[in-house]
Amino acid sequence: MSAKKIKVGLVQHACTDDPDANLAASIAGIQQAADQGTQLVLLQELHRSSYFCQTEDTANFDLAEPVPGPTTRRLGELAAELRLVIIASLFEKRSAGLYHNTAVVLDVDGSIAGCYRKMHIPDDPGYHEKFYFTPGDLGFQPVTTSLGKLGVLVCWDQWYPEAARLMALAGAELLLYPTAIGWDSSDTADEQARQREAWVTVQRGHAISNCLPVLACNRIGHEADFSGQTGGIQFWGSSCVIGAQGEVLAQAATDQAETLLAELDLGRTEQLRRTWPFLRDRRIDAYQGLLDRFRD
Amino acid sequence: MSAKKIKVGLVQHACTDDPDANLAASIAGIQQAADQGTQLVLLQELHRSSYFCQTEDTANFDLAEPVPGPTTRRLGELAAELRLVIIASLFEKRSAGLYHNTAVVLDVDGSIAGCYRKMHIPDDPGYHEKFYFTPGDLGFQPVTTSLGKLGVLVCWDQWYPEAARLMALAGAELLLYPTAIGWDSSDTADEQARQREAWVTVQRGHAISNCLPVLACNRIGHEADFSGQTGGIQFWGSSCVIGAQGEVLAQAATDQAETLLAELDLGRTEQLRRTWPFLRDRRIDAYQGLLDRFRD
Repeated sequence: MSAKKIKVGLVQHACTDDPDANLAASIAGIQQAADQGTQLVLLQELHRSSYFCQTEDTANFDLAEPVPGPTTRRLGELAAELRLVIIASLFEKRSAGLYHNTAVVLDVDGSIAGCYRKMHIPDDPGYHEKFYFTPGDLGFQPVTTSLGKLGVLVCWDQWYPEAARLMALAGAELLLYPTAIGWDSSDTADEQARQREAWVTVQRGHAISNCLPVLACNRIGHEADFSGQTGGIQFWGSSCVIGAQGEVLAQAATDQAETLLAELDLGRTEQLRRTWPFLRDRRIDAYQGLLDRFRD
Repeated sequence: MSAKKIKVGLVQHACTDDPDANLAASIAGIQQAADQGTQLVLLQELHRSSYFCQTEDTANFDLAEPVPGPTTRRLGELAAELRLVIIASLFEKRSAGLYHNTAVVLDVDGSIAGCYRKMHIPDDPGYHEKFYFTPGDLGFQPVTTSLGKLGVLVCWDQWYPEAARLMALAGAELLLYPTAIGWDSSDTADEQARQREAWVTVQRGHAISNCLPVLACNRIGHEADFSGQTGGIQFWGSSCVIGAQGEVLAQAATDQAETLLAELDLGRTEQLRRTWPFLRDRRIDAYQGLLDRFRD
């Protein structure tokens, strides 16, 4: 089996209320990664703005933009200039009153290779995403790029093995998750540690059961909850690159801006699937219940 | 939410070619667990015999027995005597020429509460299970016992998030895996470490994505491959009890017989599912592809 090595980069940083400054931070990270020969850069979820979903405020829809739009244009130019693939999570305005949490894939020629619209939408104290984002209607389809088929998913999708499996079955060679997740200060230190560990571990699980590398890029910093409902979110960073056997190849700190770099061998997937051929033995005759809400 | 605490035990030991001695080792472990107040005991996969699937030999069908049969009778008596639930993995003879890898659940009154017939059957050098075991036809149905609904699965099922999810959707309160897995001496130490780590991690992933505790009971010891195809299997033990947040609560050694005990609070599942309500947001409208062999 032939090796297929690619260098990947993840840009982890804090966000402010100034979208231009946030975009500049993402661009600086992309350039830093490019200087090291990186071929693919994953940005964090909604990297252009603070995590506005802590409150339900119609004014925040002003942060949305069309796809294609100003940010995809700017990042497309950058992708073409630096000859790399960029995965950029954006607040997409599809129409008046219709918005998505969308990840756009820009190929090395600057074109939009494809999009993924977040399918699983959370809604919890501090994460009022059902107010802002209509659930995706593009399904679980990898985006074909010059580097291969990318299984782009977003944040809450991380907890769903169904999403990872559907991408793997559609030929994804890599799973990628832009993310915005952090701690609630009202939780104990033990609980906080378990939550962060669970977040890494469930993604390692997706890597293992599909024999695919996984990239997750999360933000850092504390952002206040202006509704006063919670004490705000302390985003836990910890962006990571996970190998196809579930091994953590690289991981960023919980509190430092970082451009995390790693090299992956996409050829490893076939090697692993020959040794542990999970796809061979799936009992598709007995999986009907996965389409039920509950089997009661 | 009310706590629902149960004490569980896992009996990890080496097996010989003497089924009576193996059963005696399992029984000794069950009694040891009972002495500590354990209410549920999980035995390792095919605990009555050596792992005969290393070779394809029709003589090994002599190891199979009916269910109910002599071993379920003996363990049923023990369950009633000690007032605990026993999950016993057996080589089931269903008819001449029809055999399964079956886990039988014996309730505290000694009755057979139900069975699970291994659904995903591996077949790899050292693990020729497709020769011996017809894939299960009971589906993914938890077994209802006096302690709750048990999501009993077996070994190779461990790698399939579909199996864990189906059990969770059918109301399982606990996932349990009798197991026989180990190292091939031809692999490097690094590879061996990654494999064992992947085995624990993928199960932690099932715990996390379903907010359910997971028990896995594996054997220890080296067993030779009489076909000479491989250097045999060094079973890696490492039986473990995993909490509903994916935390490892207890883990046995790789090379020591051990009766591993832990206390679980089954009430934790509802608490976790309120905080991270994964079941609420499943996109059952978009999961059809999970029933496909490959989405090509």
